[in-house]
Amino acid sequence: MRFATLPNGTPDGELHVVSRDNTRSAPCKAATTLQDALERWDSLQEALKEEYDDLCAAGGVPFDPARALAPLPRAWQWLDASAYDSHGKLMDKAFKVIAEKIPGKPLMYQGVSDEFYSATQDVPFPTEDDGIDFEGEFGVITTAVPMGTRNTEGHIALLIQLNDWSLRKLAPAEMKTGFGWLQAKPKCSVAPVAITPDELGVAWRDCRVDLPLHVQWNGETFGKPQGYHMSFGMDELVAHAAYSRALPAGTMIGTGTVSNDSYREVGSACIAERRGIEIVDHGEPRTPFMSFGDHVRMECTAADGGPLFGPIEQKVVRG
Amino acid sequence: MRFATLPNGTPDGELHVVSRDNTRSAPCKAATTLQDALERWDSLQEALKEEYDDLCAAGGVPFDPARALAPLPRAWQWLDASAYDSHGKLMDKAFKVIAEKIPGKPLMYQGVSDEFYSATQDVPFPTEDDGIDFEGEFGVITTAVPMGTRNTEGHIALLIQLNDWSLRKLAPAEMKTGFGWLQAKPKCSVAPVAITPDELGVAWRDCRVDLPLHVQWNGETFGKPQGYHMSFGMDELVAHAAYSRALPAGTMIGTGTVSNDSYREVGSACIAERRGIEIVDHGEPRTPFMSFGDHVRMECTAADGGPLFGPIEQKVVRG
Repeated sequence: MRFATLPNGTPDGELHVVSRDNTRSAPCKAATTLQDALERWDSLQEALKEEYDDLCAAGGVPFDPARALAPLPRAWQWLDASAYDSHGKLMDKAFKVIAEKIPGKPLMYQGVSDEFYSATQDVPFPTEDDGIDFEGEFGVITTAVPMGTRNTEGHIALLIQLNDWSLRKLAPAEMKTGFGWLQAKPKCSVAPVAITPDELGVAWRDCRVDLPLHVQWNGETFGKPQGYHMSFGMDELVAHAAYSRALPAGTMIGTGTVSNDSYREVGSACIAERRGIEIVDHGEPRTPFMSFGDHVRMECTAADGGPLFGPIEQKVVRG
Repeated sequence: MRFATLPNGTPDGELHVVSRDNTRSAPCKAATTLQDALERWDSLQEALKEEYDDLCAAGGVPFDPARALAPLPRAWQWLDASAYDSHGKLMDKAFKVIAEKIPGKPLMYQGVSDEFYSATQDVPFPTEDDGIDFEGEFGVITTAVPMGTRNTEGHIALLIQLNDWSLRKLAPAEMKTGFGWLQAKPKCSVAPVAITPDELGVAWRDCRVDLPLHVQWNGETFGKPQGYHMSFGMDELVAHAAYSRALPAGTMIGTGTVSNDSYREVGSACIAERRGIEIVDHGEPRTPFMSFGDHVRMECTAADGGPLFGPIEQKVVRG
C-alpha cells in the first residue's frame, strides 16, 4: 500500500491512499490522518487494502507528489541511526571526532520531530557558514512498540525516504559535548509517499531497502549508493530505540546517510562524505557545502524504474 | 496563574486552572488542553487571568495534585540542558567522560517527548543493573519561537519542575558515541502544577528559579540545592534551542539537575552527583543507584512554605 498526506489546512493534513504508479490518489476512508491510521494499524489492514486495491483498479484523482506534505507532517518521535559503516568511517576522518561505537548497538540520536518539511518546500537556514549539507536516508514509521520489544519487524508499518539536513560546521563541537547534536540537526524533509514494505517485493531484504538512492546536487548526479549495506537492519534499529522506552505509533526511525564501501564508484548521499574522501586523498576537503539557492534531488525507484517514495526536490534559502 | 491537566480519557487530558494555594481547580473555559492554550497563549491572557482571579476568589472543585497528569502529558519537543556548572564538573569526574563545552553555549540534548509521566505514577525500567537515577530539575514551557529568536523571555509561558530519569550505567558509553543519550534517557516525570513566572514573585530572578528544590530518597532528605545558580538563564536556553529551528508552542526545556557549589552542605538532586563526591573523597562511589521499590520525592515551595509546582512522589518498578 502507498499513502500520502495532502494539505487541508490542519497540521496533520488529509490522508490519501496512492495508486501503485503514484499517479492517482483518493482520500482514505478508514482514517483521517496517517497518525490516526498508525494508531489503529493492525485493525485497519483489511479496510486499507481494499481501498488500495480499488484505487489501483480505477478511480481517484490525479496525484501530484509536489503538492504532498511529509507523510507525517509532525511525529511524536524521530530517531536517526548511522547504520552504514562506510559512512561512519569517513565521518570519523572528516570530522576528526571519533564516534566510539558500543559493541552490538547501532549509533542513534534523538532528533527534532515537531515538523517535517515536505519534499518540495524551500528549506531555511540561518547562514551558509554553518556548512549546510543534505543526507539521503531511508527510514521506517512504526506502530506502537512496547518497551523492551526485541522482535520488531511486525511493528514496521511503512517505509520512507528522507533528507536529514545537517549543519556540518556545528556538528563536531556538539559531538564533543557528548550530549549529541541539536543546533547541527535542523528539521528533516520527507519524500511524499510512504509505502508498506511489501511494495518493494524482493528489494525488501533482511529489513533493508535493496535499491539505490539517486542523489543530485544542482542537477548533477552526486551519488547512487545502494540501501542494502546496513550493519543493523531496520528491525534492529527499532529494538534499540525501544530498550528503555515504549515507542508511540508514528515513531519515525532513520537509517542514517546511505553509503557503500564502493563510494569512489557509486558516489555519496551527503557532501561530508565526499569531503572525507578528499581529506583521505588530498589532506583537505575540496568540495564546499551548499550555498543559498542550491538545490538537491533525491529519488529511489524500483528495479524496473517505477516510482516508489516519489522525489525530494528542494532549494535551500536564508532563514 | 497556575494550571494542571486532569485525566479525561484523552491523551492530552483536560486543562484546569488551579487556585493560588493549589487546593481548588476548575476546568479552563478558554482552552480545552494546555497545548491548545499555549498555541493561543498571548491572545488568551486576559481570559485566563480572569478565570484564575475568579477561582482564587471562590469556587472550583477540590484539587488533588496526586490525580493530575503531567501538565503537558505529551509535547512536540523536549530539550534538556545542563546549566548548573557544579553538577557538570562532578559528572565529568564520576563518568570519566568529559563533556567538552562550546564557549558561550549551554550543554543541551534532545529528549523523548511523546509521553511524560505524572508525578505519582510508578516508573518502569528494564533492570536495576542500568543504574537508575533521579534528576531534580526546573524547566520552562514556551509559546511558539521563530527560528533565530534571541530575546526569548517573552516566549516563556510557564515554569515546571521535573524528574529527568536517567540510566547512569548506559550514559558514559552513549556520550562517547557523540550521538548523545538515547537508551540512557527514558521518559521524564513532571510535577502536577505549571505556573506562570510571576507566581514566583521575587524568586523569579534573571530567568532563574531562586528557590531550593527539596529531594528525598526513600523518605530521607538527599539534597536541597538552590535553583538560582545556572550559568545560563532559561531565556538563554530557549535562544540556544531556537538557533536553527523554529520551536513549536508547548516546547519544554529543562535546566538539568539542580546543583550548587556547596553540594557538600546542601546535598544533591541526583545520585550520580553524590557518587561524584565520593569518587573525589574516597576514589570510588559508595552510594548505590535505585532499586525497584525505591521512591523519590521532589518539591519546591515558596519562601513562605506555600505550594508551587506540587510534589513529585514516585516509585520505580520493573518494566
